[in-house]
Amino acid sequence: MTSHAIRHVRVTPIAFRDPPLLNAAGIHEPWALRSIIEIETDSGLVGINESYGDLPMLEAMAKAAPALTGLSPWALNDMDTRVTALVTPRQTASEFQGTQISLAPGTHVSKTVAKVISAFEVAMMDLQGQLANAPVVDLLGGAARESVPFSAYLFYKYAEHIETPYAPDPWGETLAPEQLVAQARRMIDAYGFKSIKLKAGALPPEQEVAGLLALAKAFPGAPLRIDPNANWSVSTSLKAVEQLRGVLEYYEDPCPGLEGMAEVAKACEVPLATNMVVTDLKEFRRNAEMGCPVKIVLSDHHYWGGLRATQRLSLMCETFGLGLSMHSNSHLGISLTAMTHLAASVPHLSYACDTHYPWQDDEVVQGGRLKFEAGGLRVPTAPGLGVRIDPEALARLHDNYLRTDIRNRDDLAQMRKYDASFTGAQPRY
Amino acid sequence: MTSHAIRHVRVTPIAFRDPPLLNAAGIHEPWALRSIIEIETDSGLVGINESYGDLPMLEAMAKAAPALTGLSPWALNDMDTRVTALVTPRQTASEFQGTQISLAPGTHVSKTVAKVISAFEVAMMDLQGQLANAPVVDLLGGAARESVPFSAYLFYKYAEHIETPYAPDPWGETLAPEQLVAQARRMIDAYGFKSIKLKAGALPPEQEVAGLLALAKAFPGAPLRIDPNANWSVSTSLKAVEQLRGVLEYYEDPCPGLEGMAEVAKACEVPLATNMVVTDLKEFRRNAEMGCPVKIVLSDHHYWGGLRATQRLSLMCETFGLGLSMHSNSHLGISLTAMTHLAASVPHLSYACDTHYPWQDDEVVQGGRLKFEAGGLRVPTAPGLGVRIDPEALARLHDNYLRTDIRNRDDLAQMRKYDASFTGAQPRY
Ligand SMILES: [Mg+2]
Ligand SMILES: [Mg+2]
Repeated sequence: MTSHAIRHVRVTPIAFRDPPLLNAAGIHEPWALRSIIEIETDSGLVGINESYGDLPMLEAMAKAAPALTGLSPWALNDMDTRVTALVTPRQTASEFQGTQISLAPGTHVSKTVAKVISAFEVAMMDLQGQLANAPVVDLLGGAARESVPFSAYLFYKYAEHIETPYAPDPWGETLAPEQLVAQARRMIDAYGFKSIKLKAGALPPEQEVAGLLALAKAFPGAPLRIDPNANWSVSTSLKAVEQLRGVLEYYEDPCPGLEGMAEVAKACEVPLATNMVVTDLKEFRRNAEMGCPVKIVLSDHHYWGGLRATQRLSLMCETFGLGLSMHSNSHLGISLTAMTHLAASVPHLSYACDTHYPWQDDEVVQGGRLKFEAGGLRVPTAPGLGVRIDPEALARLHDNYLRTDIRNRDDLAQMRKYDASFTGAQPRY
Repeated sequence: MTSHAIRHVRVTPIAFRDPPLLNAAGIHEPWALRSIIEIETDSGLVGINESYGDLPMLEAMAKAAPALTGLSPWALNDMDTRVTALVTPRQTASEFQGTQISLAPGTHVSKTVAKVISAFEVAMMDLQGQLANAPVVDLLGGAARESVPFSAYLFYKYAEHIETPYAPDPWGETLAPEQLVAQARRMIDAYGFKSIKLKAGALPPEQEVAGLLALAKAFPGAPLRIDPNANWSVSTSLKAVEQLRGVLEYYEDPCPGLEGMAEVAKACEVPLATNMVVTDLKEFRRNAEMGCPVKIVLSDHHYWGGLRATQRLSLMCETFGLGLSMHSNSHLGISLTAMTHLAASVPHLSYACDTHYPWQDDEVVQGGRLKFEAGGLRVPTAPGLGVRIDPEALARLHDNYLRTDIRNRDDLAQMRKYDASFTGAQPRY
């Protein structure tokens, strides 16, 4: 009988072009890092995934990978146990208060175990799907929707990076309201998105509020969101939301900390969403015990422990009357496809998901860039994830990685190249 | 290409011998009812399950069954949606306050949707396992343990039913402490159980406390539990737990209602467990919002909405620091096997599970009665559930059903045949 036991895990770091997008922490560097995971069985099947590419994550995956040898692709619980034993144990959110207002929850050390488990789980489920002749969405309970809606994720941005390793991106500068509307128009024309999210916390709040009001006027009826990434004080948050009255679908992480969010919630009708203060089970519980000031959890299977853990989070959200949507990082098609399988399988998912995908122009999957239809992605029906790696693309993207000296995302240091006085202290406004 | 779409759902009610077991509601009738579910695909595969057999449940399944035609066995979310649309919508626990202290949460009308979804889900997962060539436990994340521990589930009982449709069971009468110890000895010798649960609320509390103390003496070190099924007042509960100091692993539903349980919890060191006041998501939330007076949820996939819903419940328990074990009803091998797959797949499962199985002497599965080893059941490794129906046994058990006029479990009416003054008013003591 053929053995489908896991024989080998290969993790390949990659880098791809990323535009000079502004955010609360600073500005995106010219190269975004990710990792491509390939898990091979004795029988020669290969399950794939895409995850974070920063050095600590690569080291954690390298440390944990040998533990998978000999495991069945179905043995997710075993994998979880083995990874947990090998990687630094999960630490609690409170031990990391200092980094809690970091932009990208995926970079928290406290989440390393959950991140590695997720990185391997998706690849193992890709194998499961190949074994079962079923798409991953079916392993997750089947599609509750045929197409997963994503939002237009707008950024303030410069026209060019301070370094010029490649030609400027075609989006140009976005700082003024009319540039923001033009960016939205371009993105919506290209992808068909119905909801709009503005990454804020980068420019003075009055400029960003003006930007959002311009969007509301230009796209009447489109659900709008703003995400200052906790770069506003409570009073700034309250002032801004008053100016945005009647405009917001939800208000994402205006200010730091759950206590701050609770203060804003008390004085504001718009539901608060977060990917910063409810990022693990402990924080979920704290929000529940405070009477749920945060009403929408922006989940992310990459750091919530995987596809199945995120499905379980969905039931917790239902139980406590919370909405659910999805957070994103700069990513390529494997990550986006995994999100699509997951989002399709979660009936409770209540909002269009975030994705940075339009800001990338490269791909690692066969067939190239994924195609949105009317702002959504159709759930693949081929076995497993339904996407395969293009070996030449992987080699090219790995080569990018070898050529850049970026090993950990650092939007703050990058911003200091533009403005030496930039401290990144939050909340800035 | 072969179609594995669902072609037909067959639900067969069955009845099997059940001893005269005493409980808070009254006494078991001579026949216990269950249903056997068979879901057949166009390709001729058959997925099986066992669920409740009372008339409203049979009617609900009959109403919902046609909705499955044409569905893929993977389409659990679709099944859920279709069943929910056809069966009376879930009603909230508070609308059913009057029946909340009923013994068997599975008989609550409020749980009909969750029960029907569970009944079909397990049979569909049996099909999934056959399609994927994987045991159900693998579809649930793989085994976190090879053997699932069960507890010795002791009952006070009469030697015979008041009716005599068949010869008396071999267990004899259990009323006095020494009879209880003998019952435990016999059950432990036969099955190897390590934990002991006493179904209480049937005799005066001092007798039951004496019984438990006799067990503690006879089985030193064995984890002990008592379950008065909310038939004790708060003060009786507190008095009893004081007398049982140092003896109990957990204290199961001593008194009615979450508020009552909270009063007991305040004054007692032993963790409280329940299958009566945390039986759905709404009640879970209420317990959490009250600071978790109940510390252990006795889950039951038959009414919690299925195997996957119970896995999700597990994460909720982890999040709120609650333990998890399993509740049981009188059942046969398909139900017990489904519990075993589930329990094996839930790392957080913290206690030996309940099962009424030793009280039954018949079987519907091929190969006859399941075999316990050292108090546990090994998780099947064959595809799907790993048990198949014995058609002759099914015919015989269905024949039992046709011959009895029991159509809804009624332990109260049965007890009135022995004692016309019995009212069933709770808490009795
Ligand atoms: Mg955010
Ligand atoms: Mg109970």
